[in-house]
Amino acid sequence: MRITTERLLDGGLLERGFTLGDIPGILWTPTSASGSVPLILLGHPPLGLRQMYPRLLARARSASADGFAAATIELPGSGERPREDALEQGRGDLLRVTQAGGPVPAAVVDALILPLVERAVPEWRAALDALLSLPGIGGPVGYSGGVIAIGVRLAVVEPRIVAVGLFAGSLVPRAVLEEARRVTVPVHVLLQWDDEGNDRQASLDLFDAFASAEKTLQANTGGHTGVPEHAAHDVSRFFRRHLGRPAVPRSR
Amino acid sequence: MRITTERLLDGGLLERGFTLGDIPGILWTPTSASGSVPLILLGHPPLGLRQMYPRLLARARSASADGFAAATIELPGSGERPREDALEQGRGDLLRVTQAGGPVPAAVVDALILPLVERAVPEWRAALDALLSLPGIGGPVGYSGGVIAIGVRLAVVEPRIVAVGLFAGSLVPRAVLEEARRVTVPVHVLLQWDDEGNDRQASLDLFDAFASAEKTLQANTGGHTGVPEHAAHDVSRFFRRHLGRPAVPRSR
Repeated sequence: MRITTERLLDGGLLERGFTLGDIPGILWTPTSASGSVPLILLGHPPLGLRQMYPRLLARARSASADGFAAATIELPGSGERPREDALEQGRGDLLRVTQAGGPVPAAVVDALILPLVERAVPEWRAALDALLSLPGIGGPVGYSGGVIAIGVRLAVVEPRIVAVGLFAGSLVPRAVLEEARRVTVPVHVLLQWDDEGNDRQASLDLFDAFASAEKTLQANTGGHTGVPEHAAHDVSRFFRRHLGRPAVPRSR
Repeated sequence: MRITTERLLDGGLLERGFTLGDIPGILWTPTSASGSVPLILLGHPPLGLRQMYPRLLARARSASADGFAAATIELPGSGERPREDALEQGRGDLLRVTQAGGPVPAAVVDALILPLVERAVPEWRAALDALLSLPGIGGPVGYSGGVIAIGVRLAVVEPRIVAVGLFAGSLVPRAVLEEARRVTVPVHVLLQWDDEGNDRQASLDLFDAFASAEKTLQANTGGHTGVPEHAAHDVSRFFRRHLGRPAVPRSR
């Protein structure tokens, strides 16, 4: 891991750009923290870190206010990373199907998401190795948001991840439902009840599948981008419960 | 309304027993409050106030900590109130059906719940008239818990109720689904995902039916009595958002 940029943002948030091999990433740490802090991995859709940056920064600020570090890496075939044939093909097929209207066939979902999971998950684990070797980053580790299939796979294969927050709004291959039955860490699932691009029943089936002794589904009125502020706060509270108590509790 | 008992509980909670005609009730107010405070009506199942008292008191303490008054009244045919033939008949039918196992026929649900709603709702409204005429009780008013069909009817017919918290675990007549489409105040629905006695799909249908611009469904792992502590806190936060801000915010 190589730190490529470093800047201090307002609110005492240190932002470091890094590369892990040819994978770009960003790490945010609260400068107010003493000792080592828990870490939240910030998942995101495959739209490129640059486009996702404002939202990722907002989530990093929230994590930092809770005394947590936050980090993310670019997904394979996204942003400044080289395009990959399999992923481009899957993306093109999805675009054609959705433009034609109607439901997305399972084969199209699988062709897009499954190769992405296969490629991305080892990279997130390698990033975790590197991040946890930095001074001041100690764990426990949470994973939050992004492509659901990546979050589920990470929850199954990565024992250092102790809590997972998912946003039910992305395409979920049927195989991931089976995989979800092996997830045992606490899970918080956010569902926008009126999300036009989301199959509500598939989200409920996914929630049902998790084997976790503690799992919460929170559904709210509104479309994909209409997540209410109080729901975002509840995600923060979920991670505070499972990653440790902040030095200065926030009242909300 | 006649105040029949009055005692100061620890934590600065004033408990007053009252009767409204022949209906017994309880009012809890925080002695720390100055001026007039919002009010939460505490719904409960038709098991009698005496049996429900410990749980009602716990909910009243939580409301009081948020600076709210809380009040409840006995349901028709329950507790020390005279038995009523229609309600006794419905109760007996339900008992026979559930002891025999299998799903509860819609006709049995209707026969039990609909007369209860018809009888109870005017009483809760009369209690609200009386409670809001007391010094120090000002509103806004929330309704929380208890028989879902009563909460839904109150949300439709009682304009002074500005927020409703429901616990999806009681029998819901089909007619109530239609009535729910006329509910427009904010609604928070708590659902125990593995509730043996509850029809999960009926609860999801009910949530879907509410016309409220703001509605939240929170589902958690576990059976009817396994509501996690954080879910109870989220109900409190819901009422804090809609009934006003506490003088001293609680951090959770």
